[in-house]
Amino acid sequence: MVNVMNEIQHFNHVTPVDNCYCFLCRSFTRLPHLAGTEQNLKYAEQIMKEWQDFGLDSVEMVPYDVLLSYPNKSRPNYISIVDANGNEVFNTSLAEPVPEGYEDVSDIVPPYSAFSARGQPKGDLVYVNYGRTEDFFQLQRQMEIDVTGKIVIVRYGKIFRGNKVKNAMLAGAKGIIMFSDPADYCADGVQPYPDGWNLPGGGAQRGNVLNLNGAGDPLTPGYPAKEYTYRYSFEDGVGLPSIPVHPIGYHDAIHLNMGGKTPPNNWKGALNVSYRIGPGFIDDFKSHAVRMNIHTINQVTRIYNVIGKIRGALEPGWRPRRTIIFASWDAEEFGLQGSTEWAEDNAKLLQDRAVAYINADSAIEGMYTLRVDCSPSLHTLVYNITKQIASPEEGEEGMSLYESWHKRDNWTNDRDAPRISKLGSGSDFEAYFIRLGIAAGRARYTKNKKTERYSSYPVYHSVYETFEIVEKFYDPSFRRLQAVAQVRGGLIFSLADSLLLPLDANQYADSLRKYAQSIAHVGQMHPEEMQMYQVSFDSLFSAVENFTIAARGFHERLETLNRVRLVNDQLMYLERGFIDPLGLPGRPFYRHVIFAPSSHNKYAGESFPGIYDALFDIENSVEPQRAWREVKRQISIAAFTVHSAAMTLTPPA
Amino acid sequence: MVNVMNEIQHFNHVTPVDNCYCFLCRSFTRLPHLAGTEQNLKYAEQIMKEWQDFGLDSVEMVPYDVLLSYPNKSRPNYISIVDANGNEVFNTSLAEPVPEGYEDVSDIVPPYSAFSARGQPKGDLVYVNYGRTEDFFQLQRQMEIDVTGKIVIVRYGKIFRGNKVKNAMLAGAKGIIMFSDPADYCADGVQPYPDGWNLPGGGAQRGNVLNLNGAGDPLTPGYPAKEYTYRYSFEDGVGLPSIPVHPIGYHDAIHLNMGGKTPPNNWKGALNVSYRIGPGFIDDFKSHAVRMNIHTINQVTRIYNVIGKIRGALEPGWRPRRTIIFASWDAEEFGLQGSTEWAEDNAKLLQDRAVAYINADSAIEGMYTLRVDCSPSLHTLVYNITKQIASPEEGEEGMSLYESWHKRDNWTNDRDAPRISKLGSGSDFEAYFIRLGIAAGRARYTKNKKTERYSSYPVYHSVYETFEIVEKFYDPSFRRLQAVAQVRGGLIFSLADSLLLPLDANQYADSLRKYAQSIAHVGQMHPEEMQMYQVSFDSLFSAVENFTIAARGFHERLETLNRVRLVNDQLMYLERGFIDPLGLPGRPFYRHVIFAPSSHNKYAGESFPGIYDALFDIENSVEPQRAWREVKRQISIAAFTVHSAAMTLTPPA
Repeated sequence: MVNVMNEIQHFNHVTPVDNCYCFLCRSFTRLPHLAGTEQNLKYAEQIMKEWQDFGLDSVEMVPYDVLLSYPNKSRPNYISIVDANGNEVFNTSLAEPVPEGYEDVSDIVPPYSAFSARGQPKGDLVYVNYGRTEDFFQLQRQMEIDVTGKIVIVRYGKIFRGNKVKNAMLAGAKGIIMFSDPADYCADGVQPYPDGWNLPGGGAQRGNVLNLNGAGDPLTPGYPAKEYTYRYSFEDGVGLPSIPVHPIGYHDAIHLNMGGKTPPNNWKGALNVSYRIGPGFIDDFKSHAVRMNIHTINQVTRIYNVIGKIRGALEPGWRPRRTIIFASWDAEEFGLQGSTEWAEDNAKLLQDRAVAYINADSAIEGMYTLRVDCSPSLHTLVYNITKQIASPEEGEEGMSLYESWHKRDNWTNDRDAPRISKLGSGSDFEAYFIRLGIAAGRARYTKNKKTERYSSYPVYHSVYETFEIVEKFYDPSFRRLQAVAQVRGGLIFSLADSLLLPLDANQYADSLRKYAQSIAHVGQMHPEEMQMYQVSFDSLFSAVENFTIAARGFHERLETLNRVRLVNDQLMYLERGFIDPLGLPGRPFYRHVIFAPSSHNKYAGESFPGIYDALFDIENSVEPQRAWREVKRQISIAAFTVHSAAMTLTPPA
Repeated sequence: MVNVMNEIQHFNHVTPVDNCYCFLCRSFTRLPHLAGTEQNLKYAEQIMKEWQDFGLDSVEMVPYDVLLSYPNKSRPNYISIVDANGNEVFNTSLAEPVPEGYEDVSDIVPPYSAFSARGQPKGDLVYVNYGRTEDFFQLQRQMEIDVTGKIVIVRYGKIFRGNKVKNAMLAGAKGIIMFSDPADYCADGVQPYPDGWNLPGGGAQRGNVLNLNGAGDPLTPGYPAKEYTYRYSFEDGVGLPSIPVHPIGYHDAIHLNMGGKTPPNNWKGALNVSYRIGPGFIDDFKSHAVRMNIHTINQVTRIYNVIGKIRGALEPGWRPRRTIIFASWDAEEFGLQGSTEWAEDNAKLLQDRAVAYINADSAIEGMYTLRVDCSPSLHTLVYNITKQIASPEEGEEGMSLYESWHKRDNWTNDRDAPRISKLGSGSDFEAYFIRLGIAAGRARYTKNKKTERYSSYPVYHSVYETFEIVEKFYDPSFRRLQAVAQVRGGLIFSLADSLLLPLDANQYADSLRKYAQSIAHVGQMHPEEMQMYQVSFDSLFSAVENFTIAARGFHERLETLNRVRLVNDQLMYLERGFIDPLGLPGRPFYRHVIFAPSSHNKYAGESFPGIYDALFDIENSVEPQRAWREVKRQISIAAFTVHSAAMTLTPPA
């Protein structure tokens, strides 16, 4: 809710239970409320007041002073084409056309890449498709093009934008421009907003371009950003890009397409952007260059989480057995800062006492069916709950959400159930799940991934993410949002109030086996090296087998045991069992050995990420022996961690 | 018990409760039983059998494969003086004279420095007193002597030998010899063993010279050394010295004293070793040099912990409320390896469930009074227990151990109670306390520190640490050992069986205040810099104040609360609250923010070690601004951690 941009998903960010409440959100989404601004503080105060009125036992504002990033109001950001004399012959637009109904709103923040470096680099432009690792590999290895000292242009989509920026920096680029290609941000047969829900040509995607790897505030990694907390200098801050970055829409991008080599077919998109320009490619643009003009300012700014509690008790008058904490996270869009700082602040209590974390970002990104990403320990609960919720779809009266979901998105694997995905990152569950090892999940309504090929949803992070786009197109009856709220609320209710915690170790065992098979398969693509360097996944499979036996024994004992508190402790600590305090290589705050955001795309979850990263591109390793030793080390760590988690399921000594 | 050398303290290593048991130890101490040898495995099996006979619920052997270090049997280690032609004109002895009664014992390991590098460096000899940080500073800064390429000789005592080796390496030495000076290893008016308890001239001090900083097995830092575990190469192992190291006795050391400059008065010791030799100092030794001949072998070797359990229950028939685990740690002398590997192996269970750790190394090192080192949370319990134990001293019939101890070693601070010290390291509690944050303590009988100025006890780590030296000199009636066993047993009994855990948060608050005052005092020795770089300890004092209030409130609520399990969880996790998962700078396995082994002497405990190290020798810092920023960062971390620990004492939400 209190995020930097008015994304559609945020408009019911705080409504896991009460559907009526979301109508209040028309006001929450109307005015710009970047983290750190006065308007955002007002909204936080409003949330606090509403939660108090709802009868929560306690509600408080929890401030932190974190590094945020804003456009310089007196020096706007833009990209220009300059001729040989240095004259600007084309400039990109300074803002998006304001959607109707919002003409009177002031302080609309123009599209910008939060935390971009400042500067005015000028040079040749090189197109690198989506800017993924594999795209840069293709450019450098197959096309033999060196990006050093060039400005890179990539299209949005496929991976988190911060990964694109990191790849450009690693390749030696001195700036990066990101654009929304209609191939990625327009659905077939749909009109641009306001006539439909596609991205208009003037819309551009905001968003931070950090590579935090879970650090939260870039200046206080590992510790909450309190007043007294020591702050690193900007130079030493975590994950801040060292080059200018800027986002543009497709109406502007077409102008930067100044000729050059035709891109490979799979790189073309709808704009068919040439993959290199420079003096001499086309007469018209001889001696023309591209210049970025970026003046964005980083500054330490106060943000406010709102934290409300319903205390658990076994008392007369209904209360949940366990305490429920509601959190409205500030500065999510600036790198999950509000949630991460609070996690750092409360790490010890959370590690000792937290049962689960249910995320409530992004409630709707499509009109097709339910989407759930969660810890394997929550799978069973998710299925049980969705069987008790009605399908929100027209013509499915009497059908459960589970059946509707199952019909639309059946798991292709060895089981007959709706698909549930791994958690990646890009939202506030990250610190709770990946750093602290608390069972976590999220639910939303989504598109049909098989037929709808655009990225995310078209107006994502543009000014056209309005309350009206949901009301008119995504969910006019609000029944889909209601179903999502029922899933989230059902999870919370059940986790808070069940005598025995509804977490399933057997399901975790099943998932571990699949992940182990999957990562072993990656290794087995190099059979000769596996043999030469004596790499074996046996210890990992053996650990998974051991875990499976421990899980089965544990759930069997549940039938007879009556020491609920002890058993619940074991269930609660199951997820914690996968935490390695040493973290993943180079990523000290990603400590979950089974799951981490992909090193190549923060949005995606990777299983056995340590092994995966060690195997990544290993065929091009400069020191293969060293590289394969790292594979062995990571297998050993994974095997130990799975053994270790199995021990948490043994009978308390 | 199953340690590398037959130290006197080890002979009742496994007798926290049953005093009769220690008579069995005559056999345990008779034969050499280095970790990794067949004899040591036999002793482990014997312990396992005895514990089974005692009726423990379960006893098991837990093996690990760790890096150990042994002399090469076919190429003995020694030091020689060589003349200009390369002839050896003097060699140090290859073994200690065997004590009477042990003439028939074979396989007595000669004195050696475990994990020494191999090599035969030859060169000038430079004497550097105790080899402490300040000794090397004095040598380099005041005497302006460069050690690079020289062999260093230092006397034993004052600090852990591994720190001496590290200092010599940092100074550029190519080898280090350590000797026992009578000034440090002989008490006045006492005969050498066997006529008294002083070190004979032929005795030398064994012991490892690693700088592990809590890593345990050097090849598997952070993970248990199981069969499947990945091992670093020797080159990448943790803390292995890169130069040869060797220990000698004072009969040999006198021969290496070949003339040179007279040392400063405070460096002289009893042998008055010259602090430098080289060609031309004394005619006799013109062109003579010292050569080390070290052939020690490192090898991965199986060790065996013995782990026994009494399961806790609330059942008919007496059992403790809580489970007691007895552990006989293998390979303590090789770097706390058995205990650290088991801690790594069981880290998650221990973090979730362990209440306290009571160490049972070294039961007697003197004949004067009790010595206790423990977490502040255990102070109150230690006082209460010692009030119920009888003084073992003759002429003190009817006096309690507490009174006897109080009379002999009263705290000089602001309170009227016997002295309790901080835990340093050098024994098996380290991983439990410093890495995992489990309340820990140790107790032994000690000398009078005010009048007995020798290091440790004279025969420490020599072949003369026999059962007989205790029987004849240290404790002929065995009443002192009985008292120590009663303290240890009393602690265990009370921690295992009290309804409410006997841990005292108020006492922790008191200690924190003293430590904060003490570290602030170190900072305030640089008032100008404190002002120039805006360094303030206010946040730390404020955090301590907050902790004090939380502790007081917590113990007040105890009076009325009846949810014992919840309160005990809070008490149990109090110590855990001081753990920073990020560890101390450069010491990832030392994670306790309040206590760590001193960076300059592993045996000593340092409070607020992060701040202390940042302030150490700061007046000679090359980059003072950077150095003072690190001080600020460490104060901030300490303040946060104390706040964070205070939160663990707040009422459960």
